[in-house]
Amino acid sequence: MCGFVGVIGTDRAGAAVHVAMQAMQHRGQDAAGLGTFDGKRFYLHKDLGTAVQAIPPEVVASFGGRAGIGHVRYPTIGSASREDAQPFLTRRPGILAAHNGNIINMDQLEEELRERGLFVLSRCDSEPIMLVLADELTRIRPGGHTSDDLVQALGALMDRVRGSYTVVALMELDGRKTLVGVRDPHGIRPGVYGRGPGGAWMIASESVALDALDYELVDNLPAGGVVLLRGGDEPVVRPVRDAPVRPCVFERIYFARADSIMEGGRVNSVRWELGERLAEEWKARGLTAEVVVAVPDTSRPAAMAVAEKLGIPNREGFIKNRYSGRTFIMPDQTAREAALRLKLNLIGEVFTGKRVILMDDSIVRGSTMRRIVEMVRTAGPKEIHVAIFSPPVRHPCFYGIDMPSREELLAAGFGDEEFDLRLAAYFGVDSITYLSQEGLEAVNGGRTCAACFTGEYVVPISDEERGYILSQRRSA
Amino acid sequence: MCGFVGVIGTDRAGAAVHVAMQAMQHRGQDAAGLGTFDGKRFYLHKDLGTAVQAIPPEVVASFGGRAGIGHVRYPTIGSASREDAQPFLTRRPGILAAHNGNIINMDQLEEELRERGLFVLSRCDSEPIMLVLADELTRIRPGGHTSDDLVQALGALMDRVRGSYTVVALMELDGRKTLVGVRDPHGIRPGVYGRGPGGAWMIASESVALDALDYELVDNLPAGGVVLLRGGDEPVVRPVRDAPVRPCVFERIYFARADSIMEGGRVNSVRWELGERLAEEWKARGLTAEVVVAVPDTSRPAAMAVAEKLGIPNREGFIKNRYSGRTFIMPDQTAREAALRLKLNLIGEVFTGKRVILMDDSIVRGSTMRRIVEMVRTAGPKEIHVAIFSPPVRHPCFYGIDMPSREELLAAGFGDEEFDLRLAAYFGVDSITYLSQEGLEAVNGGRTCAACFTGEYVVPISDEERGYILSQRRSA
Amino acid sequence: MCGFVGVIGTDRAGAAVHVAMQAMQHRGQDAAGLGTFDGKRFYLHKDLGTAVQAIPPEVVASFGGRAGIGHVRYPTIGSASREDAQPFLTRRPGILAAHNGNIINMDQLEEELRERGLFVLSRCDSEPIMLVLADELTRIRPGGHTSDDLVQALGALMDRVRGSYTVVALMELDGRKTLVGVRDPHGIRPGVYGRGPGGAWMIASESVALDALDYELVDNLPAGGVVLLRGGDEPVVRPVRDAPVRPCVFERIYFARADSIMEGGRVNSVRWELGERLAEEWKARGLTAEVVVAVPDTSRPAAMAVAEKLGIPNREGFIKNRYSGRTFIMPDQTAREAALRLKLNLIGEVFTGKRVILMDDSIVRGSTMRRIVEMVRTAGPKEIHVAIFSPPVRHPCFYGIDMPSREELLAAGFGDEEFDLRLAAYFGVDSITYLSQEGLEAVNGGRTCAACFTGEYVVPISDEERGYILSQRRSA
Amino acid sequence: MCGFVGVIGTDRAGAAVHVAMQAMQHRGQDAAGLGTFDGKRFYLHKDLGTAVQAIPPEVVASFGGRAGIGHVRYPTIGSASREDAQPFLTRRPGILAAHNGNIINMDQLEEELRERGLFVLSRCDSEPIMLVLADELTRIRPGGHTSDDLVQALGALMDRVRGSYTVVALMELDGRKTLVGVRDPHGIRPGVYGRGPGGAWMIASESVALDALDYELVDNLPAGGVVLLRGGDEPVVRPVRDAPVRPCVFERIYFARADSIMEGGRVNSVRWELGERLAEEWKARGLTAEVVVAVPDTSRPAAMAVAEKLGIPNREGFIKNRYSGRTFIMPDQTAREAALRLKLNLIGEVFTGKRVILMDDSIVRGSTMRRIVEMVRTAGPKEIHVAIFSPPVRHPCFYGIDMPSREELLAAGFGDEEFDLRLAAYFGVDSITYLSQEGLEAVNGGRTCAACFTGEYVVPISDEERGYILSQRRSA
Repeated sequence: MCGFVGVIGTDRAGAAVHVAMQAMQHRGQDAAGLGTFDGKRFYLHKDLGTAVQAIPPEVVASFGGRAGIGHVRYPTIGSASREDAQPFLTRRPGILAAHNGNIINMDQLEEELRERGLFVLSRCDSEPIMLVLADELTRIRPGGHTSDDLVQALGALMDRVRGSYTVVALMELDGRKTLVGVRDPHGIRPGVYGRGPGGAWMIASESVALDALDYELVDNLPAGGVVLLRGGDEPVVRPVRDAPVRPCVFERIYFARADSIMEGGRVNSVRWELGERLAEEWKARGLTAEVVVAVPDTSRPAAMAVAEKLGIPNREGFIKNRYSGRTFIMPDQTAREAALRLKLNLIGEVFTGKRVILMDDSIVRGSTMRRIVEMVRTAGPKEIHVAIFSPPVRHPCFYGIDMPSREELLAAGFGDEEFDLRLAAYFGVDSITYLSQEGLEAVNGGRTCAACFTGEYVVPISDEERGYILSQRRSA
Repeated sequence: MCGFVGVIGTDRAGAAVHVAMQAMQHRGQDAAGLGTFDGKRFYLHKDLGTAVQAIPPEVVASFGGRAGIGHVRYPTIGSASREDAQPFLTRRPGILAAHNGNIINMDQLEEELRERGLFVLSRCDSEPIMLVLADELTRIRPGGHTSDDLVQALGALMDRVRGSYTVVALMELDGRKTLVGVRDPHGIRPGVYGRGPGGAWMIASESVALDALDYELVDNLPAGGVVLLRGGDEPVVRPVRDAPVRPCVFERIYFARADSIMEGGRVNSVRWELGERLAEEWKARGLTAEVVVAVPDTSRPAAMAVAEKLGIPNREGFIKNRYSGRTFIMPDQTAREAALRLKLNLIGEVFTGKRVILMDDSIVRGSTMRRIVEMVRTAGPKEIHVAIFSPPVRHPCFYGIDMPSREELLAAGFGDEEFDLRLAAYFGVDSITYLSQEGLEAVNGGRTCAACFTGEYVVPISDEERGYILSQRRSA
Repeated sequence: MCGFVGVIGTDRAGAAVHVAMQAMQHRGQDAAGLGTFDGKRFYLHKDLGTAVQAIPPEVVASFGGRAGIGHVRYPTIGSASREDAQPFLTRRPGILAAHNGNIINMDQLEEELRERGLFVLSRCDSEPIMLVLADELTRIRPGGHTSDDLVQALGALMDRVRGSYTVVALMELDGRKTLVGVRDPHGIRPGVYGRGPGGAWMIASESVALDALDYELVDNLPAGGVVLLRGGDEPVVRPVRDAPVRPCVFERIYFARADSIMEGGRVNSVRWELGERLAEEWKARGLTAEVVVAVPDTSRPAAMAVAEKLGIPNREGFIKNRYSGRTFIMPDQTAREAALRLKLNLIGEVFTGKRVILMDDSIVRGSTMRRIVEMVRTAGPKEIHVAIFSPPVRHPCFYGIDMPSREELLAAGFGDEEFDLRLAAYFGVDSITYLSQEGLEAVNGGRTCAACFTGEYVVPISDEERGYILSQRRSA
Repeated sequence: MCGFVGVIGTDRAGAAVHVAMQAMQHRGQDAAGLGTFDGKRFYLHKDLGTAVQAIPPEVVASFGGRAGIGHVRYPTIGSASREDAQPFLTRRPGILAAHNGNIINMDQLEEELRERGLFVLSRCDSEPIMLVLADELTRIRPGGHTSDDLVQALGALMDRVRGSYTVVALMELDGRKTLVGVRDPHGIRPGVYGRGPGGAWMIASESVALDALDYELVDNLPAGGVVLLRGGDEPVVRPVRDAPVRPCVFERIYFARADSIMEGGRVNSVRWELGERLAEEWKARGLTAEVVVAVPDTSRPAAMAVAEKLGIPNREGFIKNRYSGRTFIMPDQTAREAALRLKLNLIGEVFTGKRVILMDDSIVRGSTMRRIVEMVRTAGPKEIHVAIFSPPVRHPCFYGIDMPSREELLAAGFGDEEFDLRLAAYFGVDSITYLSQEGLEAVNGGRTCAACFTGEYVVPISDEERGYILSQRRSA
């Protein structure tokens, strides 16, 4: 998944990027990188860990330039090595770039690049994007590129690179230092830009990075387009390629921070509305309950909405441990069980003797939900009703959300017929209610990428490419 | 504040202690130590950082013995050095011990010990407690101590050592490996013990450590008494000294985990009841509002209770960033402002045009609340009402809660007269409502230590001792 | 100074490079880097410290390919950062390269490269060399380069890049993985290549790297030429530019390992012969002495030769401490004095009452020699005669040996007249004898770079360039 | 083997100890510890690695007191853990102590201590020595000990503790801070003391620690006695137990630094004399040769002496690499072969066509000598004569020198008959000549511990104890 930021037109640009990276930290804690550009030289540091762990203050302080970009890595693809961390640099032309997303045809791109005499040095899919851009730019002219050159090169890039990608880059265009934000034609992964004090600008994966520095949100990055930002100038938005816009709906359901504002609006509100909609569908099934309990943190607004809609109380039944780390193997229980109990503890009396709705955002493999249900059952509830404020995940994501193959997706194994009944039996609960696809669309409109629910992949992907991507998954 | 755990009667005792330490991690992240005892030898490792950072798995794996203790340090007193981390060891008799609390007469104890030929090696107040115990035991006999010897020695210890302390220790008594839990006569700091599978036992600062390993809570450690635990045997509880029991009320209000069960019951429920009580007092003032928003995470149950009691909605208006770390100095704002915004972001629309109750657990210095109010104001609320579900903190704590001197306590500077009005003016809000001392006692009973609210110190402390303790504070 | 190695045509190429790097470690302990090439991908790791400190075995084990290069950095120029460590990679064409030497016109090269649209990313002078090569190659054709292309590109490189350089590179040429060794037209810095088992080849700064892996020395790298090595094939030597060959004479006097074989033959033998020659000149001055003592380790063979030639004993009068590191400031002496005594201890009785010859290779700043003389004097010698087996260093080196500016060179401050007398007075010794320039040439021939002794710089250097280089010196 | 230092009566005592530790670093690089004493408190830091690696300057700077001790550990016995590093502290009475040597009856001491109620916390044999001392002192009186108390307690200690030990300790005696140096009755391990500026004193394993700080050597520590040092006072030497004095002869042959002065005089001179004596015995065998080559560094003075005595040249035939570290497994040779060649390189022409004497100090397992001979043979010598300037090592050392069991000692496997012939055949050399036991005694006198040559153990050791010690060996 990963997160990126870019800043231009401010002193201490490196320090500003570092703060904004921390606001994006939930998008990846595997590695972090930060670079700046002073017009003549690039400065870059990257290492394993979070922004605070990877980037020493004295390094940032030594970096020149009033423009910089940063990246936090989620380990979807590529190795855990320092060399694969973003951002990346090219020398001709000089570009410092990072991206969030997932390239489907990376293998093919690498082949094409090698044929063009360009060696890919890392196993990170950000590098081929960047090299295609550099290659297309140098095809036009060796140096001294203009904005028009960039739009032309991005056109070729959008034709050649398939998948989801939001790119932030620093380079010289029209003889000026320029912060560039690019988004794939479908706009699958999120990206925003905003205005800071004194003519400064920021690009980021989520709007909360703007909030952390009191920058004002201007707009989403244009799908299939590019934004050019320069200190003190107004933003220049240039369309590149046209296609149906389909932002990832799973960002709003699960991955993004609740305080982020995206195409669909405030994430927290989206989750609230999904909860309201789910409550209606739940009532329509003729079910009743006495208390709603959210599995924290994502489900909290949806649980509040359900409680209000059903007129029953919402209670905290789980406490999340912010400090849980590795667990060694225990004598009397499996490490995974210990790990769950350490991470998520029960307030039993909330459940005891009650008919309970257990709210969660989604079920992927199902193993966590099974262990939660077991834990809840020890408190002696009268009934357990699982309620999920999104449809069943039946298809893997190839656009940047870390999901297992179809075989490992729990919902994919339960067919259509009597799906709810059989799944409730599997979990040993009294009922399970997913939000319907219609319910999802009622809240989000149909103009999202919901491939993980529907199997309709907005960027076509071959079987070979599917296999390649799943085999590269580190968490697989 | 600090947290401790002890385990006896189980294989992989070190691994169990390590998991339990992670459940106690909220009580201190400054340093961590873990030791075990196999009847002949002690094993010990300590280092700076959290349990996961400080204790390598291969070290724990190399430790022998079916009994162990662990400690996580909050940096109240003493230096940031590895040598001052707990647990500590004495050789005669062999004791491995750790404690939570704060000794008032440490200077005097060190002097007495030196006169008795005993050198204190660290600047941690755990060491003098332990040396007093070792000294009193060797006065009785050089080795081969019995439970009666321990009770007698603890009597002397409780007479000599003044302050708050809960101690966990491993030693040989009556010729058997014994896990010992001691609590000061007033029972100021918390401590519980519980039963595990196969005759295992655990002692811990909070019950959530038991939960993490599926141990069953048996009871609180006896104030002024000792619990002796041996694998496979029933616990032996021995009284030592009698005094009014006064558990710290601030643990329930702020410091303990919401899922912990203490003398006052489940912390989450205590906070809920404090919220209910506060709602009544609030209504009695004739105030009204449209929405309740908690400053996360501690105030969440109280805010829920207030909302239900007042019949108005409870909304999430702040999102906490779990990853915020250091911030370098920014050009256009102070680092502290950046740090707050990075740590706590606003969902503005919750506040816009509304009459809002802002709920928090307490106000110490007041600087955070001031910045929160400023942030909320940017969203354009109609009215801001601050509501605190505890009385004003007007007195420093000398029993282990890290608080500044009286001069720095905001509430101490506003006298009694028109206190609320003047404080509301200071914050620039429409009203501020603290829970009354009666309200606090209605929920908790009068049998707590509430010195930070009332100034009635259950263990008397001289001016000299006050000065000494405040001067040793690392955060001062 | 730095050292490099390259290996091709062997399994575990990375492991072989790592061993060879350790044999080159005396050439630099500041940073180390190791990379390999499998024909499709490059692998690279670099970090601060020695080869053993910087390169973890598991990283090398994960590297593919039967060809690799390595580099150890001496901190002459550039910062202490990881990013400035060698080797470097270019993507178009794919080249992994490292070098030893010093580029005089780095500023100008960077400017030219930027005009050609190529950004230099580090402050290491190895990068511009490599980029000039890549640029010249892509001028000829975008990819698929031949050996002839390389020879043509190197011609342009030798015209553009001024200074001393020996370069090792891995790249694809004529469709095959090729290990390339290049040496500047004057052949200032050393470089050799040799044959290993099973068709393997190695290039290294010094022949001792070959010895460490039992490779057989074939020849020096051709000055102004290139060697192309491929696993299983015979070496291809191609001339590029012709110029007077002038290998650095200071390598033999001081910097190289005694067991290395260079243009002048075995370094140990050169030092012996310099000693013999010095003995003759010494005798010619009419001086006599009773014992010769070497300042270890470099002077040992020369001292042996002097002793044999003069027919007086050679004794060990100093013991070098292999473990001396930093010294904190002491109360009763300066840190520098403590540091010398810690590093070099005296065996006093060797000197007591004797007329002693103190042998050293050279005098740069003179501060160490002064402290050695003071230390020797405490042992009560009858006479102290300093003998240096090279001429006075009066001129800074701009070709890669780390020397201070002219102002700081002791010999430069003593003019020509009565030079020996005044310098002996300065040190407070009975005589000082340098080897004459004729003596140096008698042993080495005139065909060396001896600019530090004569001021005749074989590659012309402007005042501006001199100033730039001295200002970049880290040890300056 | 290990090394220790102690300093009293100087400012910056910690810094002085740190410098002196570096001068002792050849005695152990496994771990290092440094502590000071200000009369009221002890300060201590220890960690793995060399003094420079383990002890940060800021830690030393934070230590109070004008007295300190330090220790460098050689990993003979005990684990590689930080907790087992020296020095150790006891609280009653307050003693900071470190030792060099090897205790034979450690098992028994631990048992006795446990019976006395004293737990040993580490696996380092320094701790039991210290606890026996503390125990004996507290038997006399609980605190306020006098010098007479110490002498009395040391008497008991010398009766109870068997093995070799030199101890340095800091404690309060007669109401004054005192630096104490103790040596076992046979004086097996070395130890000296000396006078510094302004009334300061130092104790150290070897005299070179004194040299590093310009302290003046006063005397060896008295075997079976104790030296009491206080800042500004003259040393007090007190005898404790009387026994035949037998300093370890192997220190002089191999382990000590050449510039150290011990009971036998300057180590360098001892090695020279051993060489002279060996030359005589060699000539007496009727052997002749053309050149002598030392295996560096220990054999260098002996080789010089042999060359002078035989009237043939001494040449450097090997160069030692100061930077060789680990080697990964190579494809075409074993790691051990690579490691030797990396560590010790050949100057072949010194040997080619010559009748060569190869000098070394001793042969333990023989594997290194065999590989050296193989390497020399590649240079094509006419004859190889191995000459060892000590007798054959046939017996393991139990007093602190790290040697393998008898089975692994090469010489032990060749019996007495035709020993030289058969061993020469084993190495494939023309002759092998060991120094005779008479020759050794002629130089050193008979009053040394030469158990590794003769099997006469000055401190009796049972078979059980032998087995225990060998099993604890880390290098075994």
